[in-house]
Amino acid sequence: MDPLNVFDYELLAKERMDPASWDFYAGGSDDEITLRANQADFARIRLRPRMLVDVTHCDTSTSVLGRPVPMPILIAPTSMHCLAHPEGECATAQGAGAAGTLMIASTDATRPLEEIAQAASGPLWFQLYIYGSLNVAGGLVRRAESAGYQAIVLTVDLPVMGNRERSKRHGVRMPPPPLVEANFVGIAQEDLKQFPVTWSMIDWLHAESGLPILVKGILTAEDALLALEHGVSGIIVSNHGGRQLDGAVTSIEALPEIVDAVAGRCEVYLDGGIRRGTDILKALALGARAVLVGRPVLWGLAVDGANGVQQVLSILHTELERAMKLAGCPTIASINRSLVKLP
Amino acid sequence: MDPLNVFDYELLAKERMDPASWDFYAGGSDDEITLRANQADFARIRLRPRMLVDVTHCDTSTSVLGRPVPMPILIAPTSMHCLAHPEGECATAQGAGAAGTLMIASTDATRPLEEIAQAASGPLWFQLYIYGSLNVAGGLVRRAESAGYQAIVLTVDLPVMGNRERSKRHGVRMPPPPLVEANFVGIAQEDLKQFPVTWSMIDWLHAESGLPILVKGILTAEDALLALEHGVSGIIVSNHGGRQLDGAVTSIEALPEIVDAVAGRCEVYLDGGIRRGTDILKALALGARAVLVGRPVLWGLAVDGANGVQQVLSILHTELERAMKLAGCPTIASINRSLVKLP
Amino acid sequence: MDPLNVFDYELLAKERMDPASWDFYAGGSDDEITLRANQADFARIRLRPRMLVDVTHCDTSTSVLGRPVPMPILIAPTSMHCLAHPEGECATAQGAGAAGTLMIASTDATRPLEEIAQAASGPLWFQLYIYGSLNVAGGLVRRAESAGYQAIVLTVDLPVMGNRERSKRHGVRMPPPPLVEANFVGIAQEDLKQFPVTWSMIDWLHAESGLPILVKGILTAEDALLALEHGVSGIIVSNHGGRQLDGAVTSIEALPEIVDAVAGRCEVYLDGGIRRGTDILKALALGARAVLVGRPVLWGLAVDGANGVQQVLSILHTELERAMKLAGCPTIASINRSLVKLP
Amino acid sequence: MDPLNVFDYELLAKERMDPASWDFYAGGSDDEITLRANQADFARIRLRPRMLVDVTHCDTSTSVLGRPVPMPILIAPTSMHCLAHPEGECATAQGAGAAGTLMIASTDATRPLEEIAQAASGPLWFQLYIYGSLNVAGGLVRRAESAGYQAIVLTVDLPVMGNRERSKRHGVRMPPPPLVEANFVGIAQEDLKQFPVTWSMIDWLHAESGLPILVKGILTAEDALLALEHGVSGIIVSNHGGRQLDGAVTSIEALPEIVDAVAGRCEVYLDGGIRRGTDILKALALGARAVLVGRPVLWGLAVDGANGVQQVLSILHTELERAMKLAGCPTIASINRSLVKLP
Repeated sequence: MDPLNVFDYELLAKERMDPASWDFYAGGSDDEITLRANQADFARIRLRPRMLVDVTHCDTSTSVLGRPVPMPILIAPTSMHCLAHPEGECATAQGAGAAGTLMIASTDATRPLEEIAQAASGPLWFQLYIYGSLNVAGGLVRRAESAGYQAIVLTVDLPVMGNRERSKRHGVRMPPPPLVEANFVGIAQEDLKQFPVTWSMIDWLHAESGLPILVKGILTAEDALLALEHGVSGIIVSNHGGRQLDGAVTSIEALPEIVDAVAGRCEVYLDGGIRRGTDILKALALGARAVLVGRPVLWGLAVDGANGVQQVLSILHTELERAMKLAGCPTIASINRSLVKLP
Repeated sequence: MDPLNVFDYELLAKERMDPASWDFYAGGSDDEITLRANQADFARIRLRPRMLVDVTHCDTSTSVLGRPVPMPILIAPTSMHCLAHPEGECATAQGAGAAGTLMIASTDATRPLEEIAQAASGPLWFQLYIYGSLNVAGGLVRRAESAGYQAIVLTVDLPVMGNRERSKRHGVRMPPPPLVEANFVGIAQEDLKQFPVTWSMIDWLHAESGLPILVKGILTAEDALLALEHGVSGIIVSNHGGRQLDGAVTSIEALPEIVDAVAGRCEVYLDGGIRRGTDILKALALGARAVLVGRPVLWGLAVDGANGVQQVLSILHTELERAMKLAGCPTIASINRSLVKLP
Repeated sequence: MDPLNVFDYELLAKERMDPASWDFYAGGSDDEITLRANQADFARIRLRPRMLVDVTHCDTSTSVLGRPVPMPILIAPTSMHCLAHPEGECATAQGAGAAGTLMIASTDATRPLEEIAQAASGPLWFQLYIYGSLNVAGGLVRRAESAGYQAIVLTVDLPVMGNRERSKRHGVRMPPPPLVEANFVGIAQEDLKQFPVTWSMIDWLHAESGLPILVKGILTAEDALLALEHGVSGIIVSNHGGRQLDGAVTSIEALPEIVDAVAGRCEVYLDGGIRRGTDILKALALGARAVLVGRPVLWGLAVDGANGVQQVLSILHTELERAMKLAGCPTIASINRSLVKLP
Repeated sequence: MDPLNVFDYELLAKERMDPASWDFYAGGSDDEITLRANQADFARIRLRPRMLVDVTHCDTSTSVLGRPVPMPILIAPTSMHCLAHPEGECATAQGAGAAGTLMIASTDATRPLEEIAQAASGPLWFQLYIYGSLNVAGGLVRRAESAGYQAIVLTVDLPVMGNRERSKRHGVRMPPPPLVEANFVGIAQEDLKQFPVTWSMIDWLHAESGLPILVKGILTAEDALLALEHGVSGIIVSNHGGRQLDGAVTSIEALPEIVDAVAGRCEVYLDGGIRRGTDILKALALGARAVLVGRPVLWGLAVDGANGVQQVLSILHTELERAMKLAGCPTIASINRSLVKLP
């Protein structure tokens, strides 16, 4: 039987992938408290559905940074798609395009950003890690701009790598260097050390490129206000899939205070723990413009390449549409906070 | 030994039924969070019993829409009773009549509404789904009125079918078409598509029939107030047994805000999660006029036909009477909110 | 090795007793939610111990209804001790006397109240059920008074028997009639039907006997105030060990509102869920004069007769004394509400 | 593979130690509710990390009682290290010194305090139990002062021993007398009975020695204020690792009220339940000057002597540093209460 939901894809992907690669994707940091809480916190929020609304024509389309997308479901930046499928991020981009939605390609992709752009038929943003020097990073930004990426997503929650014990127990260095040089051909790995990323990097980015800038990894109202001061176009509420600071608040828990602080002055996104259409509905009700999906997309990629990516996105789209209809929301705009009851 | 409680009937029914039919009855939507919460939320409410009241004569009788019933326990509308017993809804109606209580027959019954009415010795309400067109629905309403049904229960929480994965995993289409044509003989299945049901349908129903109208599936105070504006006689607080929007609030959780909003202007009922007399007592204490019981009735039907239905109702009646006595409530009218402590 | 705590006695008693008798003692009503909650609610309360108090001389003595007892631990009334030990309540009374504490003998004892009184060396109260008629009950009261019982404990939470499914599954009628006729020799079982017990019974009791009267089974502030109006000397907060209304509030949960309502105008006791000295300390901190222990006493009785009863009481006494020392409380009077943190 | 975290050391130590010694270290009192809660309560607190702070130079150094230490992680006083390693506390002191941090040596050490001081290369405090008489205790204090110990830590939560049932079940007396006579050579065990320790002991200690005095075992704001009145230099919030009053509040739960009461007038420390760097970060955020680590140090000692102690401290140091970086805290001073969200 075909997979019915993303959990079915999870099981199938686990069967197909080698254990070290699986654990690299699946693992969190330390005791994986935040990893589990990301999903558990969604389950604790309840929905207050409205009835007798005409939802015959249910429209899931929205826009992100002014660009129309058919659904508020984007592909989160994740690294090393070649661990899941030989075509790596190119297959992911094809799946995203087939689903009509936006993909955020990672600096740590295993295919060069230009190849991903060629493979893509939908919109792309570029996720930026600053390695080595601002020169290296500036080069990436210019390449991304040239290749048609439409925004820069600066990840801000990785001043150092989280403590991923699953990978350590496999005794393998993750990410394995050969795989991640896609965007750094000709640059020695030892020149790609972590670079201190501070608020001034956003000013530097504005100077470097006219592209809109988003910051990914914000978990407090305080930082959301600072991001606004630095002119970001969007904030992605995220705890890096439970892979950085274990014990951090969950994305869905942090979302309300950030949405309140931002007060509509930029767009707010969320990733972490999205497994069902109702999770997406809850995030939207609490003020997210759209959600980003990470691991489920990788599961689809591992199971069936571009087609698997498209199928996973299709399942979530179908589930969101059904959830909106059952909740009495014919449009994204009709979704608001009265739809949820917090625990 | 005879079954002691409805859980015993559940086990016996599961043994007797084929797995696909069992799962059709037992399953909820998505991850079945709301299905489980329906029962769990009752367990979290505690009772504050009163002592030294004379409960020798404990009277469980009440009235629903002005009609006396011996107990505030009604039969919820559920579909396809022929999966549990060859006589289907006719046996259920006989059991209900033997227990002296009211049955709500479903549009998706596997016996025509007229046959159910002939088999019944107690009062009947007719649950209405609007399929295909208002003409079809109007026909059903007129037939129900002619057959002696005393109210129309419009189900409002099924603009689309919930995601029932248990049935999908059995690979069978549920409900199987031949079984549900009982009320639609001569009408092609393809003409019975879902019809957009909105608040104006209630106005149409009032014009179509003089019968009192109830809406089933309300979960918010906002919708309860709208229902009052449209002149309903009753509101049935329900999440469709956890089979529609997974993650929705539970019935018992939604009940207080709805009772408060309604403020006595119509009757309020509840279904979802009733398994013990104390559950019924809690619902009544929070303002329900009566409760509707779904799955336990089907278990009784599967185990022993009309007699099993009667036995299940009898167990719940006995348990309610005992709970009222132990709580110091000699009458339904003596039950009030001070009897419960919310979590 | 000797039993270290009352749970060790529980295991030993379960090994020695026949399953039907064990389940008669161990079981609660319905789904045993309240049975479990009685213990779980103690575990959710935390202690705020005080340090550097001189507790070398720790005095656990107190008084109950003006009579000194060496510890605030009394024997709760429970029925049919002959199921645990051939000498039944007489052995229990000997164990209580050896421990120097008070026993409340049950109307449903399996030894006549006079024999229990002869066996006892400590103070006795008589627990009263009103069966058959006030004449029968009056006779019991006069016999108890003559035999030296010092108070009447009227149980008020048994207008009907709770639904004890464990006993029903054994297919035995509990209590088995021959065993409980100890106090009713010559009275036909069919003449011992339940009698409606109301507040006026307390007035009748006052007229019938000069003994102080306590009511057992109060769970609300409202009933505590009514009890005061009827001149009781003590209130025993109890849900009958989880054997009557399942889902009722726990004793320890109800205690604070009752203590507040009573405001020192009578003594307040508690039973239900006491398994450790720290449980007793928590109950005293929340205002109980003393606690009553039921099942653990029966476990001691089953394991080693009078000696086992004494040992169980001794364990709890030792644990209470240790807990008081560790909490900085050298006397019962020094225990107050600041010692606990409610959940 | 090398142990990755302190839980790995726990498993390795359990394999190496004999069961009675293991249980002496691992066990708590009564039902071990507080033992478990010590860890569970940390997991319920969530972190609110800040982003885009330059944490390239992350400095974990702080001072305790004015003495610089490289990290806010000290070695808690625990007894009988010879059960874990033949060199006992001397090995622990070497490990502490190698890690550059402070060790609190126990009165119940299995090596004389002078030998521990000789083995140590880092600072030492002396934990004091008062046995037998003030003369005996005064002798210990003077010896500690002579040997270079820099503070006296008076343990105040052991007026009597907690009920450690694990040790009782092994049938061994813990602590076994020969092992603990290290500091009491020539003094008969029977002369070392518990001595009543009261607030006046602190005044006596001030008269006896010019060393700063800390009290260990405070769990309430009330006692913290009394400690301040008696001129302590530090308060160690502790429930003795769940080994004294079972059901007591946890250290991390008690910390905020104590920090608030103290209002900076002395230093506040915490032990109990520290297993990860994020636990330390949470304690510091709630106002602890430093944390004390007990069992994990013993695990390291059991596994690899002084080196194991150093490794365990190194793991916690590394984890704290990583947690600080991931939370945006480049210094200890930058950690404050806004970093945590209480449950």
